[in-house]
Amino acid sequence: MATTEAFKGIGRIRYEGPKATSMLAFRHYDADKIVEGKPMREHFRFAVSWWHTFRGTGSDPFGPGTMRRPWERGGDSLDAAIDRVAVGFEFMEKLGAPFYCFHDRDVAPEGATLAESNANLEAVAKRLKEHQDRTGIRLLWGTANLFSHPRYMQGAATSPDARVFAYAAAQVKKAMEVTHELGGAGYVFWGGREGYQCLWNTDMKRELDHLGTFMRMAVDHAREIGFTGQFYFEPKPREPMKHQYDFDVATCINFLRTYGLERHVKMNIETNHATLAGHEMQHELEYAGLQGFLGSIDANTGDTLVGWDTDQFPTNIYLTTQIMYTILKYGGLAPGGVNFDAKVRRESCDPVDLFHAHIGGMDAFARGLEIAAAMRADAAIQKLVEERYATWSSELGKRIESGGESFKSLAQAAIGMGPGPEVASGRQELFENVLNRYVAG
Amino acid sequence: MATTEAFKGIGRIRYEGPKATSMLAFRHYDADKIVEGKPMREHFRFAVSWWHTFRGTGSDPFGPGTMRRPWERGGDSLDAAIDRVAVGFEFMEKLGAPFYCFHDRDVAPEGATLAESNANLEAVAKRLKEHQDRTGIRLLWGTANLFSHPRYMQGAATSPDARVFAYAAAQVKKAMEVTHELGGAGYVFWGGREGYQCLWNTDMKRELDHLGTFMRMAVDHAREIGFTGQFYFEPKPREPMKHQYDFDVATCINFLRTYGLERHVKMNIETNHATLAGHEMQHELEYAGLQGFLGSIDANTGDTLVGWDTDQFPTNIYLTTQIMYTILKYGGLAPGGVNFDAKVRRESCDPVDLFHAHIGGMDAFARGLEIAAAMRADAAIQKLVEERYATWSSELGKRIESGGESFKSLAQAAIGMGPGPEVASGRQELFENVLNRYVAG
Amino acid sequence: MATTEAFKGIGRIRYEGPKATSMLAFRHYDADKIVEGKPMREHFRFAVSWWHTFRGTGSDPFGPGTMRRPWERGGDSLDAAIDRVAVGFEFMEKLGAPFYCFHDRDVAPEGATLAESNANLEAVAKRLKEHQDRTGIRLLWGTANLFSHPRYMQGAATSPDARVFAYAAAQVKKAMEVTHELGGAGYVFWGGREGYQCLWNTDMKRELDHLGTFMRMAVDHAREIGFTGQFYFEPKPREPMKHQYDFDVATCINFLRTYGLERHVKMNIETNHATLAGHEMQHELEYAGLQGFLGSIDANTGDTLVGWDTDQFPTNIYLTTQIMYTILKYGGLAPGGVNFDAKVRRESCDPVDLFHAHIGGMDAFARGLEIAAAMRADAAIQKLVEERYATWSSELGKRIESGGESFKSLAQAAIGMGPGPEVASGRQELFENVLNRYVAG
Amino acid sequence: MATTEAFKGIGRIRYEGPKATSMLAFRHYDADKIVEGKPMREHFRFAVSWWHTFRGTGSDPFGPGTMRRPWERGGDSLDAAIDRVAVGFEFMEKLGAPFYCFHDRDVAPEGATLAESNANLEAVAKRLKEHQDRTGIRLLWGTANLFSHPRYMQGAATSPDARVFAYAAAQVKKAMEVTHELGGAGYVFWGGREGYQCLWNTDMKRELDHLGTFMRMAVDHAREIGFTGQFYFEPKPREPMKHQYDFDVATCINFLRTYGLERHVKMNIETNHATLAGHEMQHELEYAGLQGFLGSIDANTGDTLVGWDTDQFPTNIYLTTQIMYTILKYGGLAPGGVNFDAKVRRESCDPVDLFHAHIGGMDAFARGLEIAAAMRADAAIQKLVEERYATWSSELGKRIESGGESFKSLAQAAIGMGPGPEVASGRQELFENVLNRYVAG
Repeated sequence: MATTEAFKGIGRIRYEGPKATSMLAFRHYDADKIVEGKPMREHFRFAVSWWHTFRGTGSDPFGPGTMRRPWERGGDSLDAAIDRVAVGFEFMEKLGAPFYCFHDRDVAPEGATLAESNANLEAVAKRLKEHQDRTGIRLLWGTANLFSHPRYMQGAATSPDARVFAYAAAQVKKAMEVTHELGGAGYVFWGGREGYQCLWNTDMKRELDHLGTFMRMAVDHAREIGFTGQFYFEPKPREPMKHQYDFDVATCINFLRTYGLERHVKMNIETNHATLAGHEMQHELEYAGLQGFLGSIDANTGDTLVGWDTDQFPTNIYLTTQIMYTILKYGGLAPGGVNFDAKVRRESCDPVDLFHAHIGGMDAFARGLEIAAAMRADAAIQKLVEERYATWSSELGKRIESGGESFKSLAQAAIGMGPGPEVASGRQELFENVLNRYVAG
Repeated sequence: MATTEAFKGIGRIRYEGPKATSMLAFRHYDADKIVEGKPMREHFRFAVSWWHTFRGTGSDPFGPGTMRRPWERGGDSLDAAIDRVAVGFEFMEKLGAPFYCFHDRDVAPEGATLAESNANLEAVAKRLKEHQDRTGIRLLWGTANLFSHPRYMQGAATSPDARVFAYAAAQVKKAMEVTHELGGAGYVFWGGREGYQCLWNTDMKRELDHLGTFMRMAVDHAREIGFTGQFYFEPKPREPMKHQYDFDVATCINFLRTYGLERHVKMNIETNHATLAGHEMQHELEYAGLQGFLGSIDANTGDTLVGWDTDQFPTNIYLTTQIMYTILKYGGLAPGGVNFDAKVRRESCDPVDLFHAHIGGMDAFARGLEIAAAMRADAAIQKLVEERYATWSSELGKRIESGGESFKSLAQAAIGMGPGPEVASGRQELFENVLNRYVAG
Repeated sequence: MATTEAFKGIGRIRYEGPKATSMLAFRHYDADKIVEGKPMREHFRFAVSWWHTFRGTGSDPFGPGTMRRPWERGGDSLDAAIDRVAVGFEFMEKLGAPFYCFHDRDVAPEGATLAESNANLEAVAKRLKEHQDRTGIRLLWGTANLFSHPRYMQGAATSPDARVFAYAAAQVKKAMEVTHELGGAGYVFWGGREGYQCLWNTDMKRELDHLGTFMRMAVDHAREIGFTGQFYFEPKPREPMKHQYDFDVATCINFLRTYGLERHVKMNIETNHATLAGHEMQHELEYAGLQGFLGSIDANTGDTLVGWDTDQFPTNIYLTTQIMYTILKYGGLAPGGVNFDAKVRRESCDPVDLFHAHIGGMDAFARGLEIAAAMRADAAIQKLVEERYATWSSELGKRIESGGESFKSLAQAAIGMGPGPEVASGRQELFENVLNRYVAG
Repeated sequence: MATTEAFKGIGRIRYEGPKATSMLAFRHYDADKIVEGKPMREHFRFAVSWWHTFRGTGSDPFGPGTMRRPWERGGDSLDAAIDRVAVGFEFMEKLGAPFYCFHDRDVAPEGATLAESNANLEAVAKRLKEHQDRTGIRLLWGTANLFSHPRYMQGAATSPDARVFAYAAAQVKKAMEVTHELGGAGYVFWGGREGYQCLWNTDMKRELDHLGTFMRMAVDHAREIGFTGQFYFEPKPREPMKHQYDFDVATCINFLRTYGLERHVKMNIETNHATLAGHEMQHELEYAGLQGFLGSIDANTGDTLVGWDTDQFPTNIYLTTQIMYTILKYGGLAPGGVNFDAKVRRESCDPVDLFHAHIGGMDAFARGLEIAAAMRADAAIQKLVEERYATWSSELGKRIESGGESFKSLAQAAIGMGPGPEVASGRQELFENVLNRYVAG
């Protein structure tokens, strides 16, 4: 175990309030502050992403890594992986993050064979467990990386090669078991390369059937090993593939229904993936919520003027207000949480930038929660919405909603309406102004 | 009835082959030519859109209409509507289009009351029927315009106003009945304003429930009146609304499954709507096909460098090849067809431009069919695809597909694979070159 | 003159501060409040757009107008136009907007001939002048509508028809003269249809040359009539055309330089046009500023998830902070101003919605100004930027900037750098957190 | 020198005509075939990109390389670089490509110091020269990689660090000299990271000034060393940066004019960069052509439904027809050429895929040239365009074009036009059908 401190000169990040002068302090995130009856900590269940924060190098398609990480001695050895556990937990302790998330290959290196890879993972898991026990920090969810290794270049469960399916199954089996051993609250499927680059060389029907079979096997295996954590499915429309089968929340739910998996899996929703699919994050959350599939979120933000997944840390208060408003509306996220699937910019190469990034994100979520809760306390939006739908509480509206009308009966009613109803203004600008009363100070 | 010829100087458009010198002739569309066992006519079942072709004015958000239509005497009167029927059928006869499609309000004007609107529709329908009988031209599908009138500005079935729901129900009831009387082969739901502009003022759950109720009533009413035509649902992600509930094929199917409508409704898929949702047209067709929901298509093209629905006539042979390849694969469209939901450009203001536009579209589809059929005859693509998935015909592949494997058994198999399988090249460039052997001459 | 009050029940909108309970009050816009040495009023020079606010009907490509405007008696008559002036000034007085903007055809109807159109415009201008004198409200800029009439369907100055060029010249001549008579502080060119739908039918070189000639004539005519107001060029990449020649600020400036117009014309920059071109509004402002072409702005916002010009009222505080920060940096806008080229949503059909919309926009700008000024007072961002560029104040940096270095001399310097310089972190997350100290409260 | 054959089993690719049965043959590219008076070879001056074809590994943000290159022994050593030269020339000889392009760091590894890097480059250049002499294959252009090394993470000429500017100057100096020694016909500037990720931390004015200074130094150095090849500037709007200063052709030309460089630099235009900027490739070529800046092209294609630079090989005949039509119109590209800045898909991992990819691209360009030349021979499009602009050859049109009119004189003319001119149809559908007569067979 690395006995030296990795983040020297940085202590525990404290809540100091909006007037804080230090940039290494929380201005809004006060873990113990009670909002709507529970502490902020429990609203968010913030998690740090092992891959971005401890394995991100800053490489991009136009250049190699830039990150300066004094504790990294190069290479992807098991020893380095084990040493890195201490660094990760030091970071999370200093930040005050109660959870983390990982892919199998983030925490432990791929070996020459599957057996070796599994052994690596076990060795690191042992160390993770020790640090979990020591710190109380927990695993929000685990997952398997089925997209980096060349064998997965054409998909894992949807590979044209049946042997790759088998290999992926073996890898997920192990990742689930390790997640279970570490007391993980969930397990995520993100189908990195489950999709296609080109329709002409693809048998989409067959690939989707394979994906259904794969996920069914996962559910069966969970039962077998007694894993009762929540399964999540993470939508993303494209990148790395031209088209990914898990396009958006609606597509994912339709997939689950097609293959009889709808009782077993909820959604893990990411802002940048939502915007790549042409949706507001708020839309995806609402849609998942109303369909009963709201699970967990990957907190980040994209840049809607560029077309790839920038995975930036979220700092926009409008965004975090929208997110927290919807989450409060649907009763919270637990056993899910808020995982920062976000990375510091390639140019933000110092260790301290990792702190700035997470502090900014956590503060933005805290401020969003406060605003959302204030709006809810006043029913500021809700009252206006109820007014807008008032006719649905009329006799006519109630009968329609309760199934007591038909085209025939409604046609009779409509004939009596003369030129037809005059609809009230939608008042969008007023709604936006009401929102700004809370956001804009 | 207008006894004068509207399109003077233009006779019946004939097939003259690729060397035709006239621009008012088909170069590829030969209605009687047999391809894969049936005449081109039956492959396409081409339909003319009443709204664009006979009601399109060329207006856009920056200016009023530009179209020069000598037969239009201005106004939106019933008399004008009745006269217009002859013009429409003259056009379709000269073009050789066997089908047409309409919205109720395209063919007949909205009246001061619903009763008057219904009477208008009946009066025009009588004339349509006469011309159908005279010419043999048929109605591919009918639909109701639930998006233009101000009462529908916030949705029809998803309006916040229950009275609007009732009014829309009455309108659809009548449109279905008229479609039935005219022997329409189908009925389309396109939810023009079923969506939202702003999430803050919207109760999405309630609106979606209402839409489910509405469509259920439509199915019930069809049974009651004996309409056995096919129902279609038409996806479009946005425009006029910021977000529309019928986003894409997957979202629509998920909606149908949520409300138990999946046995009653298929998809009517439009190219430009597909691209606005971030999909290839070929993707949407494939996805609908493999899910068993491929119904009918709206033929047009968009401009992927602009962000709105340009509804241009399709002339790109790659596009029509993709479309016809998938349609052939899934056994054809009937009782659906190929409806030109496309409009001449605002600057193409002469009647003859309507002919150029449709000729270009029909020829492009005919050429696409020929190319697709040639590729299929050679199994040029299919053989390469089968090679790519060859391992799924191995023992391992068959056992996985037949449910005979589990994570446990596959993990044992994978352990024996050493460093894991080496996947064969995806050969995308080769596939593209094979395609060009057929497309590029 | 309409002697009746149009906006009954709505009085003068007052500044009531952040705690205001009425939604018809300013929370942040306090016209007389001094910021950086001048009153808010002079920072913004807010203008109301005649077209959207007094002529907007709510029509869109899928339906006709929805707006309920009791004072409109239908039609586009000269009498109605004259009556409407009183309504417009009542609105602006109640709102406290010191400026307005118009197109010739917004304020006065097109006549059967150019002579008649000119007479209409003169008649209305007389009335506008009276109200200007009465209220002190002024014309920020005038312009001519060269895109709505069918004659302009293929462009005005860039029409393939030379007669249209002539007609457009005559129209702009009159619009400039009326703008001059009304004491307009500027004149805007927005090339609505100056562009193309299709490259194949277009001679782009010839069209651009014509546009250069046209603008040169305008400059000459201004000199002739003694108009000394500022000319503005308004970039927009597309819509209504597929491609517009005034794509973005850089393209417009390049055009001006090509035709020797760079001393005569500055930019009028709109947020939604910037985002349609793939730029942040802040980018376009900065770029115009550094090139010396920052003129005036059209204040609105778009929706980056849809692809058309939504022209919404701006309420996002991040956006208005960015805008005001850059404007302060470049010394303010006068003689330009902040024109609300924004429209209420089609569903916001009541007159009061016009007030909500403008109040929201003005408050957002006021709040943005306060935040920007606070950031500038602390030099919060500026100090960090200066640190980032510190090496440019070294000997080496100064020599490069002053032209005292060459590739040869720098190569010698670089050879001495061994493995080369290690660049400092870009600190983007820190910058974002600093921004949020001011924005997020 | 590697004495073994790298591409075993693949011989010289021959022209075999459209009926060729082999997929390793040209169907359309017949180097000696005369089109418009010169052989195809000279029309295209095809170049192979050293970086993609010989250094591309298939890595992407979600995984490492996948390419199977038996001749690569791993690492980035000078020996490997020297051996690779033989492989590159074997490929180009077999393909029949007359040119290649490189970045300094593609052909030779970065050393521990600049001196070492320079020595590496010289060593490889010696070998390149030998192979050039042996084969007659030439260097179309050289360039320097100023974006991969971490020192350039915040830009090279636009770095906030003046030392990086110096280092970049030294690197470009050497790259220019090597290009000169190898007889390169041109030198390209592509500002990989010359732009920003975030406006808040950026001094755009200062950065642009530095870029101007840098390019001026390059021009001066060229004169000093006697390099008379053409300088090119390559537009790209974004990626890797959020915004790049060389956004599109118009922005680049405006930059050149701002810094007095317009006589020294032309454009190197890439399809995928054009579409990322929201332009058709044809637009960028036309615009560069009419402004007198058409230099060279990077041939590839993107996917307009995804938002990043996919750099696919171009196979779409519509695209290549557009490109070649415009290039013919502006008199050809020499001394520029057609460089395949394109890469095989990550899944196309076999050496033979490199051949399929280039053959597909070369055939697509050859077919596009044939189609464009046929259209030009018939003046099929040109005659229709001339008709469309016919009024500009009238007295009025000629006077306007020759500067003989003013707003005043035109107003008099317009007054005489009564209701104004009626513009002829734009005939876009007809143009598209004419195009398809040539493209669709």
